[in-house]
Amino acid sequence: MDRTVQETADRIRDMTIRGAGRIARAGASAIGDFAKGYQGNDLGRFLDELDQASRVLLDSRPTAVSLWNGVHATLKGVHDAGSVDEAREVLISNSDDFVKRSLEAVEIISRIGAKRVQDGDTILTHCNSSVATGVIKEAHRQGKDIRVFATESRPWRQGILTVNDLASAGVDTTLIIDSAVRSVMKKVDKVFVGADTVTSHGALVNKIGTSQLALAAHEARVQFYVCSETYKFSPMTLFGDMVTIEERDISEVVSPGEIPESVKVFNPVFDSTPARYIDSIITELGMIAPGSVYDVMVRQFGPDVLKE
Amino acid sequence: MDRTVQETADRIRDMTIRGAGRIARAGASAIGDFAKGYQGNDLGRFLDELDQASRVLLDSRPTAVSLWNGVHATLKGVHDAGSVDEAREVLISNSDDFVKRSLEAVEIISRIGAKRVQDGDTILTHCNSSVATGVIKEAHRQGKDIRVFATESRPWRQGILTVNDLASAGVDTTLIIDSAVRSVMKKVDKVFVGADTVTSHGALVNKIGTSQLALAAHEARVQFYVCSETYKFSPMTLFGDMVTIEERDISEVVSPGEIPESVKVFNPVFDSTPARYIDSIITELGMIAPGSVYDVMVRQFGPDVLKE
Amino acid sequence: MDRTVQETADRIRDMTIRGAGRIARAGASAIGDFAKGYQGNDLGRFLDELDQASRVLLDSRPTAVSLWNGVHATLKGVHDAGSVDEAREVLISNSDDFVKRSLEAVEIISRIGAKRVQDGDTILTHCNSSVATGVIKEAHRQGKDIRVFATESRPWRQGILTVNDLASAGVDTTLIIDSAVRSVMKKVDKVFVGADTVTSHGALVNKIGTSQLALAAHEARVQFYVCSETYKFSPMTLFGDMVTIEERDISEVVSPGEIPESVKVFNPVFDSTPARYIDSIITELGMIAPGSVYDVMVRQFGPDVLKE
Amino acid sequence: MDRTVQETADRIRDMTIRGAGRIARAGASAIGDFAKGYQGNDLGRFLDELDQASRVLLDSRPTAVSLWNGVHATLKGVHDAGSVDEAREVLISNSDDFVKRSLEAVEIISRIGAKRVQDGDTILTHCNSSVATGVIKEAHRQGKDIRVFATESRPWRQGILTVNDLASAGVDTTLIIDSAVRSVMKKVDKVFVGADTVTSHGALVNKIGTSQLALAAHEARVQFYVCSETYKFSPMTLFGDMVTIEERDISEVVSPGEIPESVKVFNPVFDSTPARYIDSIITELGMIAPGSVYDVMVRQFGPDVLKE
Amino acid sequence: MDRTVQETADRIRDMTIRGAGRIARAGASAIGDFAKGYQGNDLGRFLDELDQASRVLLDSRPTAVSLWNGVHATLKGVHDAGSVDEAREVLISNSDDFVKRSLEAVEIISRIGAKRVQDGDTILTHCNSSVATGVIKEAHRQGKDIRVFATESRPWRQGILTVNDLASAGVDTTLIIDSAVRSVMKKVDKVFVGADTVTSHGALVNKIGTSQLALAAHEARVQFYVCSETYKFSPMTLFGDMVTIEERDISEVVSPGEIPESVKVFNPVFDSTPARYIDSIITELGMIAPGSVYDVMVRQFGPDVLKE
Amino acid sequence: MDRTVQETADRIRDMTIRGAGRIARAGASAIGDFAKGYQGNDLGRFLDELDQASRVLLDSRPTAVSLWNGVHATLKGVHDAGSVDEAREVLISNSDDFVKRSLEAVEIISRIGAKRVQDGDTILTHCNSSVATGVIKEAHRQGKDIRVFATESRPWRQGILTVNDLASAGVDTTLIIDSAVRSVMKKVDKVFVGADTVTSHGALVNKIGTSQLALAAHEARVQFYVCSETYKFSPMTLFGDMVTIEERDISEVVSPGEIPESVKVFNPVFDSTPARYIDSIITELGMIAPGSVYDVMVRQFGPDVLKE
Repeated sequence: MDRTVQETADRIRDMTIRGAGRIARAGASAIGDFAKGYQGNDLGRFLDELDQASRVLLDSRPTAVSLWNGVHATLKGVHDAGSVDEAREVLISNSDDFVKRSLEAVEIISRIGAKRVQDGDTILTHCNSSVATGVIKEAHRQGKDIRVFATESRPWRQGILTVNDLASAGVDTTLIIDSAVRSVMKKVDKVFVGADTVTSHGALVNKIGTSQLALAAHEARVQFYVCSETYKFSPMTLFGDMVTIEERDISEVVSPGEIPESVKVFNPVFDSTPARYIDSIITELGMIAPGSVYDVMVRQFGPDVLKE
Repeated sequence: MDRTVQETADRIRDMTIRGAGRIARAGASAIGDFAKGYQGNDLGRFLDELDQASRVLLDSRPTAVSLWNGVHATLKGVHDAGSVDEAREVLISNSDDFVKRSLEAVEIISRIGAKRVQDGDTILTHCNSSVATGVIKEAHRQGKDIRVFATESRPWRQGILTVNDLASAGVDTTLIIDSAVRSVMKKVDKVFVGADTVTSHGALVNKIGTSQLALAAHEARVQFYVCSETYKFSPMTLFGDMVTIEERDISEVVSPGEIPESVKVFNPVFDSTPARYIDSIITELGMIAPGSVYDVMVRQFGPDVLKE
Repeated sequence: MDRTVQETADRIRDMTIRGAGRIARAGASAIGDFAKGYQGNDLGRFLDELDQASRVLLDSRPTAVSLWNGVHATLKGVHDAGSVDEAREVLISNSDDFVKRSLEAVEIISRIGAKRVQDGDTILTHCNSSVATGVIKEAHRQGKDIRVFATESRPWRQGILTVNDLASAGVDTTLIIDSAVRSVMKKVDKVFVGADTVTSHGALVNKIGTSQLALAAHEARVQFYVCSETYKFSPMTLFGDMVTIEERDISEVVSPGEIPESVKVFNPVFDSTPARYIDSIITELGMIAPGSVYDVMVRQFGPDVLKE
Repeated sequence: MDRTVQETADRIRDMTIRGAGRIARAGASAIGDFAKGYQGNDLGRFLDELDQASRVLLDSRPTAVSLWNGVHATLKGVHDAGSVDEAREVLISNSDDFVKRSLEAVEIISRIGAKRVQDGDTILTHCNSSVATGVIKEAHRQGKDIRVFATESRPWRQGILTVNDLASAGVDTTLIIDSAVRSVMKKVDKVFVGADTVTSHGALVNKIGTSQLALAAHEARVQFYVCSETYKFSPMTLFGDMVTIEERDISEVVSPGEIPESVKVFNPVFDSTPARYIDSIITELGMIAPGSVYDVMVRQFGPDVLKE
Repeated sequence: MDRTVQETADRIRDMTIRGAGRIARAGASAIGDFAKGYQGNDLGRFLDELDQASRVLLDSRPTAVSLWNGVHATLKGVHDAGSVDEAREVLISNSDDFVKRSLEAVEIISRIGAKRVQDGDTILTHCNSSVATGVIKEAHRQGKDIRVFATESRPWRQGILTVNDLASAGVDTTLIIDSAVRSVMKKVDKVFVGADTVTSHGALVNKIGTSQLALAAHEARVQFYVCSETYKFSPMTLFGDMVTIEERDISEVVSPGEIPESVKVFNPVFDSTPARYIDSIITELGMIAPGSVYDVMVRQFGPDVLKE
Repeated sequence: MDRTVQETADRIRDMTIRGAGRIARAGASAIGDFAKGYQGNDLGRFLDELDQASRVLLDSRPTAVSLWNGVHATLKGVHDAGSVDEAREVLISNSDDFVKRSLEAVEIISRIGAKRVQDGDTILTHCNSSVATGVIKEAHRQGKDIRVFATESRPWRQGILTVNDLASAGVDTTLIIDSAVRSVMKKVDKVFVGADTVTSHGALVNKIGTSQLALAAHEARVQFYVCSETYKFSPMTLFGDMVTIEERDISEVVSPGEIPESVKVFNPVFDSTPARYIDSIITELGMIAPGSVYDVMVRQFGPDVLKE
């Protein structure tokens, strides 16, 4: 096995590389690097090894649709190549392209989202999404007077990262516990969250607690925006695949001995927010309704995506 | 100042005595003990000192309506007394009565609530309410096959107390983080929570996060029951008093240095659940609709309560 | 055992006597007749036999709160009697009173309800409630131009009785199947249904399908009125008793051999409509909100009803 | 006919006296003055003339429940009098009492409502209710920093009165057209409106447009308070009477010739807000849920009010 | 007229052939058979007869969009043919294609839907849809532990067919009357129904009662899935055509003499479920949001479909 | 500067030309006329002047997306021209095309909308939209028996125009004040309104008050249709641009001296209706769900519209 590929896979698996965007770019880059470093001219053999490398990468985080999309975007068209050289060129170009577009996407989404923020707005965000905080920081950079509530986001408390990030940028930030979401919602003008996965029927899978934010926002007529690069759109959901919601260890929630052994801990990483609570999904292809996800998927991944 | 009274007030203030019920009984008992220990025969002077004692007690936790009710229930009729002896008798009797009825109320509410639990039910509870867990344990004791989800209840994590308590009683219990409430709600049949204060128009003030549970229960057609002794009904709300929602220190949420100084922490202790999300309030005077709180208040505290 | 009592109990049990009102009056009358026919002067013995008679009657339909109320209204005060004669007088008077007030209640409710009907209204009713059809016929009698949709009400199809009854009275009536409720709801101005039981927190237990009508009415901003004599208010629910929802035989729904043996049939008689879908409950003591049921119960059954 | 009575009736009819409170007090005073000025000692004759006077007053605005309550409160107990002198005394005392309590009620309600207003609140009001503006002015007087939106309230544009009144009191006030209610609602914290009539099942009949405010408030989780003296509670609704919603002349809406003759104008004075959109009704007997109106009616008007 | 065509039309009209899918395939096949059997070489005459044949087929069930789509899919491109032979080839190929794709669609949809079913799920279905039962049977075949509620579906009681079908496949099935839908909904995890017609703005026209299921599912946060081959998407709705909801005979609901002649029976076959209650529409082109129907229509039927 | 262009811009600015459709056609025509009248052969110079002309037109009403679309539709492809003659031809053809398609669009939308109107329907419309009244008049012309409620639409009272227009066409019309919308809504079957702007995520920006109509329609299960030519779809919203909601002068609402100077008047021209309250948007490309706006935008304006 190619060493870069294996190392990347390992680092994804052990969480050294994490976050939907970073994982996707790491996967795409690993394939590009594999192509660059490949010695040999036998196309058949090359494709076999490529296939193996792809599988190693995908297996490192089988539930991450961004990784799947990053790897598949890189592989696009490689089977039409007539030689190893041609194939190599395709892969390197695809890989560079994906990484570049992925980084640009964050910027475009930040710019779009920032336009939705108005002077005087109070914003709520959850967990630590680089796209959502990108929006907030861009709005602040444009001189808009805003205030932000950020949730603690137990059990990992990524909210601590978020408030540190926003405070560094000079944004007026307040931390709240996850139970206080409905308590502050009446004062909030807009909610911005990131996405782990977006399904073909417009549902959002994201950090546990997101759907509660959405529900409380809906109850108080607060706009709920999802910030999502299109490579978080899951083509597998087109054909019904349920997004697997990882359950993590009890030790993330309680210390040893804190509760009796007979007590279970249910510790899911994500939850699912139905389309009806989402005002808009902001992508690098524009701001859309949840009902347009299917259209964007076909546009972005090509009509072949519609073959089961 | 009477020593018992002062000590009780101190212990309420420093949280040694806490929980709406315990505080109320401590207040009532302190007045009773004051009466018992009083030496002297000058009624006017007695009433002056009594008044002073009451104020010391009430000031120890000015936002706790249960304390107010416990003290006032004990004082009832004392001003009609013709002598210190008579007054003493009234106070001791009232004090004993209040304590007894308060303890009985927990039992009655547990029995009523347990009847609402059906074999096979999954129950959700929040924070650590002795009345709500009383209901659950009573239902379990009756042999009903039930499962319970209990929230962690950050920042104090009273959910740890709850799961320990329920596990000791042999109840099948699962701990979840506060963000997972909506995630498990579809599997829940009934929610039981306690009350800090119930207002004259049927709203519930209770541990932060309660209103989110209520909202998520409403969204999923899950019945939401409030377990509340009537001394948590606030006569002050009849005349418009807002229930003060205490904000507590940042140190309960973050460790020193964890976040920049510029970041604020909003740490409210309670939130308010509107009547429309409450299916029923279970009191020791029966199971009522939120629209019946006014009626029960007048019945329980007497018509004088309607004088501003 | 007294023959009248036994016969009445039998006829209630075998459904010869049915309908909440008729059952209640039959129970009250049977106690009255028992008293009238009683020979003997030993009060203790009389009360013992009375107790036995009451139990026989109550056991004939243990889930019918109207029967419970009819019997208990008749027994009221009998234990204060000093002799069999006195007791007899009390029972006969109570029994007559109950029957008379029960019949008057239907008339009063019909008059109140009819005032809520406006010229040109389209009304929907479900199953075959004499109080609800009373309202409709009274409005028609007053010369109001109304149209009525009546549901078939499977499995017993009491809608056939309803349309026959309304057609005899000359009311413009249309029969629909139970699945067509939402389909016609947009054209409906008001829904009137009867009640089997009303709980202390304002929920309605009534013929299966009622809660679907209420939900569809709520969705279309159609007013939903419950017509209920106060003896259908259940004091037992004050202390948490769940209203038992009888499940009846498969043979009411399918013919023998129509479905494989492995297929189950779930055939509940009633369902429960939450207070939030009920605009008003029309009783002989006036038109009330569901939140006033507790108040009316205490007013009607006396404060002793609040003792568990 | 007594001249004062006739003059009062005339001035009510021609709208010289208007506003639910003023009408009620005028009716009560007219009866009091009639009693004061009555010459003669024949009780039967006195009562006949009193009856006639009452009818003249009630007929001057048959849809105004406040007038009905004012007159009936004044008549209370007069039929138990043994002489004209006694009757006179009763009427004068009742009349003075009603006027006094009516004026006190405005003050009490203002004080209760003002406690519900918090520093920094934005308030919305509709039409020109002296009780609702009383609340706002009291909150302002207490030094709370508030902003108010007031609707124009076509066709009579009473909003002009409201903004003049609030501006005189120094309140920060903004006028909006009736169509802009939902547009500003997201910025509003609380809505305060008055009442024309409150029904026994907790619905509010008030100036046309009120129910739209309530709906928009509900959609945005904004608290909706009704300010209503209890003499606006309608005992007639207990027995089903629909509150008549007056339709007024086309000339209030369009100028002559502005629209073709074939075009109709529907110009109702009031609309009806269902209980479910009302958070609380603030009365001089305290702040209640809509479900408590029945209870307050019986408490305030006596149990006889329950006789059809 | 071609005999096969006429016979097919007759059998569609007299309901020998029924069910949206079977009708569509019969129409497509009849055109194919007509082409196969056609003798003669005059293209103009051929097209005239083809046109006539098409009209005969479409007139046999003018409200069935599946028939319209089956016939039009078969006719696609025939007018570009240069000769009868070419035209024949086109028609035969189109006809075979449509039938093949139609059958495959059922399988694909079953596979997609089955992925949405999770171990332990309780499913509700209505009427007798081969695609919806296909989903259920596929999930069962995959070894998932599921339970199914099936409605009786008066007046034709197709639920009897459904429970027989599911029981044969070994699925744990319970029959309920149509009025019991809301009663069981709290226990249901997912609803799967078929489609008669899907409109361009995402509404579903399906067997009467479907919209009640959807409403009750929405109320209880139960996912509502529509299983629909794309040939049930109606291009006519793009240009505003209302889907005609057939009303059928009174005799389907009541026996002769059962009700007076003056009583009407409203017996609609279908009702309309708004997009807001539909979580997803499962098609052979993937699982979509109701907002994507327009997009899929254009994709599937070609851009010419957008010409009025 | 070209005189026609300047004049058109002036007349748009001073409101001589107004209404989204008329403005768009005026802009397109002005560009066409500019091209027709242009003397000279220097392509570079021609394009410079064209650019200047476009800017002058766009600046005359910078918030009108219809103007933007009309001008840009006319400019389409002009930069590919090889000569002034070619460019001129392109512009003239585009201009004619746009005007023609714009006028046809009104007719197509009227025809589609009229199909949604059923015999006996009561329709509500707001302000004065030529497309919405087009639908109503077309339905009336087809002989459908309909009744219409039209709102006054303060402050400009365009409802007066609407009722004059509909009355001339013989439609049964009733004028209501804006506050009476919820009051009549229960009697309404369908709402038809026009559009100022439609956003990429399916929201509607239209005359102030529209969102209140939509909310009240939603509450009463009344279908809410938006009539909008696709040139009112705003490509700028794809990249997040908020639609600027113009605030107009206080003098439109109050007369001088009517209110104190300290009183503000908030007088916004438009409000925003969220997608969830819109049943369908009727365009000249068919009737769509709000979730299909993105798809239609790309289809109509070309994929380049997706480049930020």
